[in-house]
Amino acid sequence: MGDKCFYNSDGDLLVVPQQGKLRITTEFGKMTVEPNEICVLQQGMKFSVELDGCTRGYILEVYDGHFVLPSLGPIGANGLANPRDFLTPVAYYEDKEVKNYTIINKFQGHLFTAYQHHSPYDVVAWHGNYVPYKYNLSNFMTINTVSFDHADPSIFTVLTCSSVKTGVAIADFVIFPPRWSVAENTFRPPYYHRNCMSEFMGLIYGSYEAKENGFEPGGATLHSIMTPHGPDSDCFDKASNAKLVPERVAEGTMAFMFESCLSMAVTSWASKMSEKLDENYFKCWQNLKKRFNPKQVLHKSDINGE
Amino acid sequence: MGDKCFYNSDGDLLVVPQQGKLRITTEFGKMTVEPNEICVLQQGMKFSVELDGCTRGYILEVYDGHFVLPSLGPIGANGLANPRDFLTPVAYYEDKEVKNYTIINKFQGHLFTAYQHHSPYDVVAWHGNYVPYKYNLSNFMTINTVSFDHADPSIFTVLTCSSVKTGVAIADFVIFPPRWSVAENTFRPPYYHRNCMSEFMGLIYGSYEAKENGFEPGGATLHSIMTPHGPDSDCFDKASNAKLVPERVAEGTMAFMFESCLSMAVTSWASKMSEKLDENYFKCWQNLKKRFNPKQVLHKSDINGE
Amino acid sequence: MGDKCFYNSDGDLLVVPQQGKLRITTEFGKMTVEPNEICVLQQGMKFSVELDGCTRGYILEVYDGHFVLPSLGPIGANGLANPRDFLTPVAYYEDKEVKNYTIINKFQGHLFTAYQHHSPYDVVAWHGNYVPYKYNLSNFMTINTVSFDHADPSIFTVLTCSSVKTGVAIADFVIFPPRWSVAENTFRPPYYHRNCMSEFMGLIYGSYEAKENGFEPGGATLHSIMTPHGPDSDCFDKASNAKLVPERVAEGTMAFMFESCLSMAVTSWASKMSEKLDENYFKCWQNLKKRFNPKQVLHKSDINGE
Amino acid sequence: MGDKCFYNSDGDLLVVPQQGKLRITTEFGKMTVEPNEICVLQQGMKFSVELDGCTRGYILEVYDGHFVLPSLGPIGANGLANPRDFLTPVAYYEDKEVKNYTIINKFQGHLFTAYQHHSPYDVVAWHGNYVPYKYNLSNFMTINTVSFDHADPSIFTVLTCSSVKTGVAIADFVIFPPRWSVAENTFRPPYYHRNCMSEFMGLIYGSYEAKENGFEPGGATLHSIMTPHGPDSDCFDKASNAKLVPERVAEGTMAFMFESCLSMAVTSWASKMSEKLDENYFKCWQNLKKRFNPKQVLHKSDINGE
Amino acid sequence: MGDKCFYNSDGDLLVVPQQGKLRITTEFGKMTVEPNEICVLQQGMKFSVELDGCTRGYILEVYDGHFVLPSLGPIGANGLANPRDFLTPVAYYEDKEVKNYTIINKFQGHLFTAYQHHSPYDVVAWHGNYVPYKYNLSNFMTINTVSFDHADPSIFTVLTCSSVKTGVAIADFVIFPPRWSVAENTFRPPYYHRNCMSEFMGLIYGSYEAKENGFEPGGATLHSIMTPHGPDSDCFDKASNAKLVPERVAEGTMAFMFESCLSMAVTSWASKMSEKLDENYFKCWQNLKKRFNPKQVLHKSDINGE
Amino acid sequence: MGDKCFYNSDGDLLVVPQQGKLRITTEFGKMTVEPNEICVLQQGMKFSVELDGCTRGYILEVYDGHFVLPSLGPIGANGLANPRDFLTPVAYYEDKEVKNYTIINKFQGHLFTAYQHHSPYDVVAWHGNYVPYKYNLSNFMTINTVSFDHADPSIFTVLTCSSVKTGVAIADFVIFPPRWSVAENTFRPPYYHRNCMSEFMGLIYGSYEAKENGFEPGGATLHSIMTPHGPDSDCFDKASNAKLVPERVAEGTMAFMFESCLSMAVTSWASKMSEKLDENYFKCWQNLKKRFNPKQVLHKSDINGE
Repeated sequence: MGDKCFYNSDGDLLVVPQQGKLRITTEFGKMTVEPNEICVLQQGMKFSVELDGCTRGYILEVYDGHFVLPSLGPIGANGLANPRDFLTPVAYYEDKEVKNYTIINKFQGHLFTAYQHHSPYDVVAWHGNYVPYKYNLSNFMTINTVSFDHADPSIFTVLTCSSVKTGVAIADFVIFPPRWSVAENTFRPPYYHRNCMSEFMGLIYGSYEAKENGFEPGGATLHSIMTPHGPDSDCFDKASNAKLVPERVAEGTMAFMFESCLSMAVTSWASKMSEKLDENYFKCWQNLKKRFNPKQVLHKSDINGE
Repeated sequence: MGDKCFYNSDGDLLVVPQQGKLRITTEFGKMTVEPNEICVLQQGMKFSVELDGCTRGYILEVYDGHFVLPSLGPIGANGLANPRDFLTPVAYYEDKEVKNYTIINKFQGHLFTAYQHHSPYDVVAWHGNYVPYKYNLSNFMTINTVSFDHADPSIFTVLTCSSVKTGVAIADFVIFPPRWSVAENTFRPPYYHRNCMSEFMGLIYGSYEAKENGFEPGGATLHSIMTPHGPDSDCFDKASNAKLVPERVAEGTMAFMFESCLSMAVTSWASKMSEKLDENYFKCWQNLKKRFNPKQVLHKSDINGE
Repeated sequence: MGDKCFYNSDGDLLVVPQQGKLRITTEFGKMTVEPNEICVLQQGMKFSVELDGCTRGYILEVYDGHFVLPSLGPIGANGLANPRDFLTPVAYYEDKEVKNYTIINKFQGHLFTAYQHHSPYDVVAWHGNYVPYKYNLSNFMTINTVSFDHADPSIFTVLTCSSVKTGVAIADFVIFPPRWSVAENTFRPPYYHRNCMSEFMGLIYGSYEAKENGFEPGGATLHSIMTPHGPDSDCFDKASNAKLVPERVAEGTMAFMFESCLSMAVTSWASKMSEKLDENYFKCWQNLKKRFNPKQVLHKSDINGE
Repeated sequence: MGDKCFYNSDGDLLVVPQQGKLRITTEFGKMTVEPNEICVLQQGMKFSVELDGCTRGYILEVYDGHFVLPSLGPIGANGLANPRDFLTPVAYYEDKEVKNYTIINKFQGHLFTAYQHHSPYDVVAWHGNYVPYKYNLSNFMTINTVSFDHADPSIFTVLTCSSVKTGVAIADFVIFPPRWSVAENTFRPPYYHRNCMSEFMGLIYGSYEAKENGFEPGGATLHSIMTPHGPDSDCFDKASNAKLVPERVAEGTMAFMFESCLSMAVTSWASKMSEKLDENYFKCWQNLKKRFNPKQVLHKSDINGE
Repeated sequence: MGDKCFYNSDGDLLVVPQQGKLRITTEFGKMTVEPNEICVLQQGMKFSVELDGCTRGYILEVYDGHFVLPSLGPIGANGLANPRDFLTPVAYYEDKEVKNYTIINKFQGHLFTAYQHHSPYDVVAWHGNYVPYKYNLSNFMTINTVSFDHADPSIFTVLTCSSVKTGVAIADFVIFPPRWSVAENTFRPPYYHRNCMSEFMGLIYGSYEAKENGFEPGGATLHSIMTPHGPDSDCFDKASNAKLVPERVAEGTMAFMFESCLSMAVTSWASKMSEKLDENYFKCWQNLKKRFNPKQVLHKSDINGE
Repeated sequence: MGDKCFYNSDGDLLVVPQQGKLRITTEFGKMTVEPNEICVLQQGMKFSVELDGCTRGYILEVYDGHFVLPSLGPIGANGLANPRDFLTPVAYYEDKEVKNYTIINKFQGHLFTAYQHHSPYDVVAWHGNYVPYKYNLSNFMTINTVSFDHADPSIFTVLTCSSVKTGVAIADFVIFPPRWSVAENTFRPPYYHRNCMSEFMGLIYGSYEAKENGFEPGGATLHSIMTPHGPDSDCFDKASNAKLVPERVAEGTMAFMFESCLSMAVTSWASKMSEKLDENYFKCWQNLKKRFNPKQVLHKSDINGE
């Protein structure tokens, strides 16, 4: 990316590299972002990206607001993603005169181009806190049940972009990092559910606990609003029969979710032209047997582990 | 407690029995409350208590508001104390004419007495949700770190009575129940700190992890606003040298805290007349050695467990 | 409706049956809903409806939020629709294996179909409060002036689905039930007005006081944002000359209103294909005479009844 | 009140004259306030009062905030006390030099005196809306049930001074004006209750429906927080046997209530020195018989009038 | 405009006449609005406009809410546009019978026409505060720095129509009136910037300080979301070399801005058919030289004037 | 101050040195604070102060909350005290063993003492933003009218400690710095007023514009809630006759105000024992003549400068 930069008038970009390293220059300085790190490049900021070899990843654009850390509630003053682990760029400027420095702007979904005779990165100082940042996902302090039952995935929220309705997110960025799993008397994998959010999942590396096969790093799944979903039948069988001792889960794996109160459209490129659609995805649930038995007696101890 | 009842015009009572069983009759019906259960009897409700033998416990009175479940934030829709586990009284009435049914009222801190010729428990139906309730502490779904670091004790909040300032509690009722402890690269017991709240701790049974000796069931400690405190030196040594594998903590123990943004006065009965003051309490910290070493190099891996 | 069910990914449905009985099966159990009752079936819940003979009614779908009881303000703790009168389904399950149980889903305004081999109503227990409900309109405690003047129709609100702007409803469900009318020195029927809401009115049975002819049970009127409207000329004459003694109004009648801050489109089916449009509706106001007389002297006693 | 005026640094005064006319001069002009009118004189405003003969009334002082109209909720845009009926003073000034114009100031509950050589009422213009006002209670648009049941007395709120806790009033000024009573299947007088507010009642003229004897104009009752109270036994008998046709209530009567979330102290002048305490007040309830009958079957029609 | 009137069902109109006088008749009375005055005509109000000769101006329509004065924050109780300077119409009615009084209604962006036999201005009284108003811009109390630096243009806000997101305006109406400029050690004209709002500027009379040529009275500029802009090169040179003594700025000028969080579309009439587009607008910045000099040393005194 | 430190359990301290330099050591590092700077030392932080010679100043303690920057409202994103000008301590620790390091604690208004064997300043790192800070008052960007009229003193707010009631401050710290004064057609000094706040004024150096004599650096005045006050008669005469050209005011002066919604008590030390009370203070207003002339005609141009 020679004498060229980009800025987005429409919203903020959350970038999740999955393969390859991004060397990003911004008006605020430089940052390198690698897989297992994420970065946010906000509305109106000019930036250029240089790549190291083959590169791949996920981008989430939010139009209405910015990403913030979730309000922690009873979790208290520390936990989940801690503010001190978000890093801003290293200072940098260049004083370069060129024939045509190309500036590409996304405005109302369209791309526009302008030219100028010098680099836009001739900034030596700034103040304020409207600045790009990156975050290493391994710094996430994961919190979950240490007794029984299963917390909602919101407990894994790294960043959230709230709507104007309290508690409803335009987009949550959620991760499923390596952690201890100790829940007793509980089906430990993600539960079967349908809900009022769109769930777009991706995998940075490793294999996702609820679908170990067929969901590859760089791939993605989308479970739309109110569409029921849950672990595949292999996961169900394994988890239903496991001895519930403390164990590490998601070791060597980093799956994530973009969760939104809005519905997400799939482009025809994604669904057709790419020829990447997994036509057999639904089959992962076909072996789930009907297990309904209304006569089964549940003891309270079956529920909360007494 | 013969033909006698009580009601409090000043506030709500949170009752934490520590020894003996309480058989409580209220205008809404009857409930039995035993150690490891708590109950709340609100402002203005008439109730009578019968005891089974020797009885002892803790009472917290709040004047400004009622206890509610904490707003869970990213914990989601379930967790900590779940609404479904709070129990209201079993329906009951009595149609009894007596010579002098004694009604004792606490109003502005003073006790007043009135007499009537029948039982106040002649109520066959009611509606609304202003009603006494009890909760069994073993139903608490405990949440905490499953990676590294140490969550604030607010994560153990069962009930909170908020002040008009968001995030500031007139009183939190917090418990330290049996649970898994899996934090890596972390000093696992409660950390050394001073803070803007008064911390009144009690012990229902067992032995509290941060002070195994000298803090007996039925006893209490008070750490006032901004007074530094933390584990005793035994706990410090043990925890500093422990191998950090998953382990159960607080097994067979139930300690709790009344935490308030207000300062708490100690009555002269408590500090003198009872002759129960532990004059040697401060000694539990005397063996803590100075360990300050500014030259010590901290690796990042010392902090978050990589 | 054999082995078939429906769920809506887009929003909640408020159902107002006007003729015929609905036998509704849901994942939460069964309820029968008859004219003069309403029910709400929320986003994502599977349900099937069996009909008793000829059936007709109104449905209001809200996309952005749920229906709640209006905050009562100075009305206090009770009044209008009381929480205790909302009924949830009677427990029910079926354990049925079928060849093709058809599940129809409305998602983003389109219908999708899926098949499974068993009934979705194999649920024996649930917890939470996200549950369908019904309400009998005759339980509505109607409040209005007992002195003079005319309260806004918001005083008849049964349920409201608020927008994110305080005081502005995506949709209010409002009824005009049988009640006492005692206002003195007042034109008692709905006043002539234009306002910032869309008003869709329907009639469950009886005859609506402001338009006794031509507005039939099962019919509907729509007065769009800022379009002036009010009683027909017959109503105007009658009410202007009536002796203002206490009288029952709306006896044997149940009219209702869907009121929204949004504009409502009329389908071409409604306006054309149905051949049900009342082309003469506007004529009900043609006999209203011009009565403007700037010289008329108003005494204060003409206004507030001294 | 010759060359003398008063101002209050501590709070606002709500004045309820019960006998005699008040001719009030303020820095903003003059107003005459008679029984059945009220006025508010705010913190810091200088005023002088001339009396017409024998005068008597009630004053409520609020320290924390000002009186406002209650937010009407579903009542809508009009109703209860309407803004247009509050009257501000008639313009007036005087240009008067005197030897000693006495200014009396209440500051922190103490009275201070200062002297100056001219009248403080030499103000010819002002702007803003911090201004004294009066209101005629006969302008109150009374709202209540027109079906069944009994609305909370908050529905009679004229003015409220809110605390910082939403829904909790430092003081409500509530009236019980002449109105229609049409509730069916209902015990129509104020119900028996205890609640979380202090209720101070006064009577401007007539006789209060719930205690026709012994509660004289100019008198007052105080029912403190959580003290049960209700109509006297005569009222109970009459209302229990009345035929529930529409009838005017409180004709020729204006009772009012100062209701507060705070406890009110009674001065020793009021309770002793005045020799006005009604030692027999409690006897009005002595003839209330025990009527408890758990075997009585309630039909739904007994409750809501079907 | 003979027997004809207009009302808008879609939103409120802020009218900024730039040339010629508007004689506006409304249901609330009459007002004359001249250049340097603005008026607001709200949703649903009928009005007719008579013109004096050649007339021209700007109209801003807001759909979601009404214009209000900005909350002043630390500015205090007075300042910017003061409430007392907003004027409502002079009382007026007409009692006129005509053959066809034409009423034109804008509803959902389309125009509809209705006819009636009398004037709609037969209104002799009204109450409430939903009423058109006008404001003379010379009454604006301008506030700005009296030390150093440059306040944001929000400090010139006359009226704002807020979105549901606190601090984000659907539209601000901002003016740049004649005033003193005294900032020391500061580049005094509007600074170079890009921001998250659309900025539509117009000029009522005079010449705008940041672009004295080519931006004519009656003209307009639009700087869209995140498009960088600022003074032309003449202004830059002049301001960079000026001696920073107190001086009057914008004498004889009144420029204004419609600022919105939404993107504004330009009609093809504006961009093409009108033949008024200034194709050379971008040239005003062409003479701005590159002045970047990373070696330049800034003293603190260069920044804040010590 | 040898081996001694202090911490306050009750609230935060805002320190305004007026004479002499403070060398403050805190657990977070060291800072030097001189006259024309202020610093804040929060609840619970240990600190020690060394003085340079003769030292004098003002301290404001707030119990209920912390100082924050005022929300700027229409002033925008920058202005008044800018966040970047607040400085936190320079890193420092000491590793010192002593016989008796004395720790003095203020708790509930009483002083308590404890001893330990090492310095409390053995802290090498911390994170969070609960940290002492200082601010140089000459960095304040002063904003005020640049047209006519007089902004409220709230426009000079440096820091505010809000009560739970929006817009009501427990304490504001307000300064009157050197600045340009350009208001036309205006009485420029502070206006005569009485208001709902306590105003405690102090003077760091120079002479205060509204009372040039008798209000010395290091002195203080207190104008209590609703007590009228304003400039002395000299100031009145001078300002009434001045030609209203741009002029610098408060050059060489820094006066400040502690403004509170609470009433402030004066200690008997201040009012008596110190023998510093200015018994003649009231005389500064004695020469103000009565100037009331109701016949004076005000032209609009007298008011807003047309």
